[in-house]
Amino acid sequence: MSDKKVRIGLLGAGRIGQVHAISIAANPNVELTYVADVFIDGAKKITDKFGGKAVADPAEVFASGEVDAVVVAAPTPLHVDLISAAIDAGVHVLCEKPIDLDIARVEELRAKANGAKTVVALGFNRRFDQQFNEIHARVTAGEIGTLEQLTIISRDPSPAPKDYLAVSGGIFRDQTIHDFDMARFFIPNIVEVYASGANVFSDDIKSLGDYDSAVVTLRGSKDELVTIINSRHASYGYDQRLEAFGSKGALLATNVSPTTVKLYNDVTVEGRNPYMQFFLERYAFSYARELELFVEGIQTGKVLNPTFDDGRAALILADAATESAKTGKAVKINLS
Amino acid sequence: MSDKKVRIGLLGAGRIGQVHAISIAANPNVELTYVADVFIDGAKKITDKFGGKAVADPAEVFASGEVDAVVVAAPTPLHVDLISAAIDAGVHVLCEKPIDLDIARVEELRAKANGAKTVVALGFNRRFDQQFNEIHARVTAGEIGTLEQLTIISRDPSPAPKDYLAVSGGIFRDQTIHDFDMARFFIPNIVEVYASGANVFSDDIKSLGDYDSAVVTLRGSKDELVTIINSRHASYGYDQRLEAFGSKGALLATNVSPTTVKLYNDVTVEGRNPYMQFFLERYAFSYARELELFVEGIQTGKVLNPTFDDGRAALILADAATESAKTGKAVKINLS
Amino acid sequence: MSDKKVRIGLLGAGRIGQVHAISIAANPNVELTYVADVFIDGAKKITDKFGGKAVADPAEVFASGEVDAVVVAAPTPLHVDLISAAIDAGVHVLCEKPIDLDIARVEELRAKANGAKTVVALGFNRRFDQQFNEIHARVTAGEIGTLEQLTIISRDPSPAPKDYLAVSGGIFRDQTIHDFDMARFFIPNIVEVYASGANVFSDDIKSLGDYDSAVVTLRGSKDELVTIINSRHASYGYDQRLEAFGSKGALLATNVSPTTVKLYNDVTVEGRNPYMQFFLERYAFSYARELELFVEGIQTGKVLNPTFDDGRAALILADAATESAKTGKAVKINLS
Amino acid sequence: MSDKKVRIGLLGAGRIGQVHAISIAANPNVELTYVADVFIDGAKKITDKFGGKAVADPAEVFASGEVDAVVVAAPTPLHVDLISAAIDAGVHVLCEKPIDLDIARVEELRAKANGAKTVVALGFNRRFDQQFNEIHARVTAGEIGTLEQLTIISRDPSPAPKDYLAVSGGIFRDQTIHDFDMARFFIPNIVEVYASGANVFSDDIKSLGDYDSAVVTLRGSKDELVTIINSRHASYGYDQRLEAFGSKGALLATNVSPTTVKLYNDVTVEGRNPYMQFFLERYAFSYARELELFVEGIQTGKVLNPTFDDGRAALILADAATESAKTGKAVKINLS
Repeated sequence: MSDKKVRIGLLGAGRIGQVHAISIAANPNVELTYVADVFIDGAKKITDKFGGKAVADPAEVFASGEVDAVVVAAPTPLHVDLISAAIDAGVHVLCEKPIDLDIARVEELRAKANGAKTVVALGFNRRFDQQFNEIHARVTAGEIGTLEQLTIISRDPSPAPKDYLAVSGGIFRDQTIHDFDMARFFIPNIVEVYASGANVFSDDIKSLGDYDSAVVTLRGSKDELVTIINSRHASYGYDQRLEAFGSKGALLATNVSPTTVKLYNDVTVEGRNPYMQFFLERYAFSYARELELFVEGIQTGKVLNPTFDDGRAALILADAATESAKTGKAVKINLS
Repeated sequence: MSDKKVRIGLLGAGRIGQVHAISIAANPNVELTYVADVFIDGAKKITDKFGGKAVADPAEVFASGEVDAVVVAAPTPLHVDLISAAIDAGVHVLCEKPIDLDIARVEELRAKANGAKTVVALGFNRRFDQQFNEIHARVTAGEIGTLEQLTIISRDPSPAPKDYLAVSGGIFRDQTIHDFDMARFFIPNIVEVYASGANVFSDDIKSLGDYDSAVVTLRGSKDELVTIINSRHASYGYDQRLEAFGSKGALLATNVSPTTVKLYNDVTVEGRNPYMQFFLERYAFSYARELELFVEGIQTGKVLNPTFDDGRAALILADAATESAKTGKAVKINLS
Repeated sequence: MSDKKVRIGLLGAGRIGQVHAISIAANPNVELTYVADVFIDGAKKITDKFGGKAVADPAEVFASGEVDAVVVAAPTPLHVDLISAAIDAGVHVLCEKPIDLDIARVEELRAKANGAKTVVALGFNRRFDQQFNEIHARVTAGEIGTLEQLTIISRDPSPAPKDYLAVSGGIFRDQTIHDFDMARFFIPNIVEVYASGANVFSDDIKSLGDYDSAVVTLRGSKDELVTIINSRHASYGYDQRLEAFGSKGALLATNVSPTTVKLYNDVTVEGRNPYMQFFLERYAFSYARELELFVEGIQTGKVLNPTFDDGRAALILADAATESAKTGKAVKINLS
Repeated sequence: MSDKKVRIGLLGAGRIGQVHAISIAANPNVELTYVADVFIDGAKKITDKFGGKAVADPAEVFASGEVDAVVVAAPTPLHVDLISAAIDAGVHVLCEKPIDLDIARVEELRAKANGAKTVVALGFNRRFDQQFNEIHARVTAGEIGTLEQLTIISRDPSPAPKDYLAVSGGIFRDQTIHDFDMARFFIPNIVEVYASGANVFSDDIKSLGDYDSAVVTLRGSKDELVTIINSRHASYGYDQRLEAFGSKGALLATNVSPTTVKLYNDVTVEGRNPYMQFFLERYAFSYARELELFVEGIQTGKVLNPTFDDGRAALILADAATESAKTGKAVKINLS
């Protein structure tokens, strides 16, 4: 691996941009050279703390000649253009999910992205979570024989603000998209999607024509069945579990607690404090690891992160789920 | 409660008949007076051990005037006629699931069964399992607020013999039917069924045109979503879990181990011996409790077990699932 | 095994006598022929429910010729005389622990008890608890290599009434005695005892000159170290754990819950209801199994229960602990 | 808190020195200016990686005027002199445990250490482990009422090399000393010590006149009983558990696994991979946190770490345990 630090421009200084800023600052192999955000104050807040220059326009970053790579944490509608600009500038890019909410725009960019000489990586950080990663490695090693069923339970602590939800593309494109990618981490070739949406607790979400809860069944090309169970809330914190069931056994990842401490009293025994309420806390390790692999990929010339096509596949699955939830019919898909 | 023992005739001396014989023998409030089976030797085996007269023809039992109730453990095709005969004879009846594999025959009997002066109970024993029963009681008590999602994982240790499977009516009518009833234990009014079947491990089952694995999504009338995950095998033993997820919390029943003993060594830590391999062992308590409540129901004049209509509903769900798995479309149903 | 039912006389109709009555009634191989108690009403209550004749004087039972065995559940001071009388009458005896609170009386009876032609068994029921039994079997099978350390945590839900405690012989002879026997179940040859008593919560117990809490260290002849941790109360129910630590691994028995149900909400996750509050509930299985083995021992001519010498050894350990707690010195003992 | 970085000299570049070097490098509030070790190559290895000057003689570090604080990771016999030199130089000091193996040398330094104008902190890192820290906070907050019993199970994965053990001062001064400090974290005023040592698996350790296993009972001034269970090996990895038992409940910390993944197959269910084998891996967080608090203490002028007197107390307990294990008598102590 090269000793030279990878110079990174961070495009977007919002909540997720700040997460990446922390990962970048903590990574000894990279240097934060630029932060771009139209809200220049947000960009400055980050550069004040972690170094680099704050600019309003990402074009300045690409023109500077002082970045080897960019991390795209801008609003979703800008993703396609920024990826494209990065490729044009010969700069590696790690783009937050989703590529876009419109599959047509994604397809337009596809050939260019796949033909790029630089790394084009998608930010599905959960693939790097220690739990899911370990299960994947052990399934791949054959520890449970043939993978037959995959069950993903994925519930957020509470819904995002209504403003955010209004432009999120709906539960399947916004929340389930992570689970679609997780499903494909284990079973890349998904051929069928069925989805049920439900409105059980949020009038706000209902008024947006969106669902607050959902269950999705996917079928892999080898007849594997994947179940995804979603809710936009969970009173006990972030609920993120996964079970891989195979011919010779099963591997189960339960939720992560900060400590192993259990309480015993006259009300409850073996009880723990509720799980983490925030995705950054829950997935801190996986965000850092995602960046680490992005940098390692740049230095070794290999793609170690999910690819553009992984981002495209997740969106195709989300679109199919959206359609299925409306029609009550399974949707056949072809990801190739 | 009356002090007089309830005299019971057991119709069917096969595997499940033997289970009921044990429950009858262990119950101090009942007396086994008859066992009927065309294979008279099977009937005799039971009467030799637990008392009562062995006969080949159930008609003799009804004619004897020496039974207050019958437990129907005969082959499924005989269930409708035996329930009917019991009603005619003024005898209480606890019939093993399913009522029949043909919904038309079930509908024909419906009015008579619901108008019967005697107890007509269906043998969905799992409702009496300590785990599921406790969750049901706590959900009903409001401990988790509004019930929003129900997840049932239900895997058999290994498939039944091919001969049995050939006449079983298929996975949805034979295995999932228990889970359909469990779903209705929590959410009686199911309005929509979607099912996916898969063939991932058994050529035998495939050759029968049946599935070895399945995932079902049900929708309740209040938009609750129910997920059922089935497999005909599980290397680690009987896999029977249930999770009720509500607005204020969740209740989860994991698998039952005979002891709490955990092993720690250089290969594994916190490991337990595999779960029970046999449904009788796993559900021993619930079979006994089912009979107990049947007898209590007779003595108090109340129906404490699942009813004929519960049996009918489970079959309607199984039929809908069978259809859905073929067509790839959700099936709307009306259980009333 | 003989088909003839073993006729049992129950001596003592108090709390523990009632427990044995239930075990006797549930055991198909025995018949309750007599219940003796100076409080004849207590005896009658049992015979009304389970059969047999109620008498005030145990001598009647021995003289009747209608008992093959007796279960001694009378107050401790009567144990020695009743065991002796049973031996004289040629009747098998299962005696509740302890044999006596005075080791001199135990030693006096020893030769006679060990020379008896009938079974003389001691009621250390915990040896038959499924958890401890499984660990013992697996340790014996060599699953954890050489046994090096044994840890017993044994806490009662709450102290017995002061009246009872006043004549109990103190915490070591009354509560820890079970743990001493459990220690010897794994490591029969104990050679050294050190005990610490403490008064942390009960003025009542302190006023009796007794301890409400204790920690005991035993040493086996192969330098194994045993730790026993006791308390007379535990807010969360009966706390009964055991850990066997060996050269190749460890086996741990945690507490028993009636179901596997766990609750998740905004206060706690993975929490269960408190453990059982009552020893009869916690040890129901082990009491039944104890009687079963006693009967099997009678029928096969083998001693399958703890013996008179096991009862003697536990008392020697309790005496040594009592002395050690006073002097602050380890006490060497010789159990042979 | 001051913005100025705290300049640190690391004294000792061995295994534990390297741990501290990593913590120092990762802490944004400190700067590594010196590393001293007679084996200058070891020192250079660290400065090459993390910066600072490598020297052979710690005197150079104190004379440089370029350190605000030192971390003492040198061999135990040098600790007293280095603490003393640091105080003389007006430099803050964080010293690895133990202060010394000879209590006389510790007492000699005591007045000077306690009168120092700079921070004198002892490296009992386990106080900062997330598990033990959380339990301590919750006990202090009164969550379990009055603390009555404390149980510490502390087993190493495998013995240190014989050379190391030969100069370690014995199991109580080398291994148990951590547990003595942990006991005092919860119950500072210990008044009595009883210890049992045993030799069950290592001839090497026996030949040194040392024990490979030990059990210790401590008594607090309020009659709290503390149990410490030690072994120099554990096949399943680092075994570090703690249970605080109080009048209103108990808090239990079980072992830490890197992930939540459990395996289910035909051999075991609910099993996890063995625990970590190495103390640096197990206690990585606590070492980093220890340094963090040391620096925060320097910047705020408060002592946030265990003090010199905590180091002294642990050694007094270790000495008492060593004596008790030989004599078989409890040893009364006075820590004031």
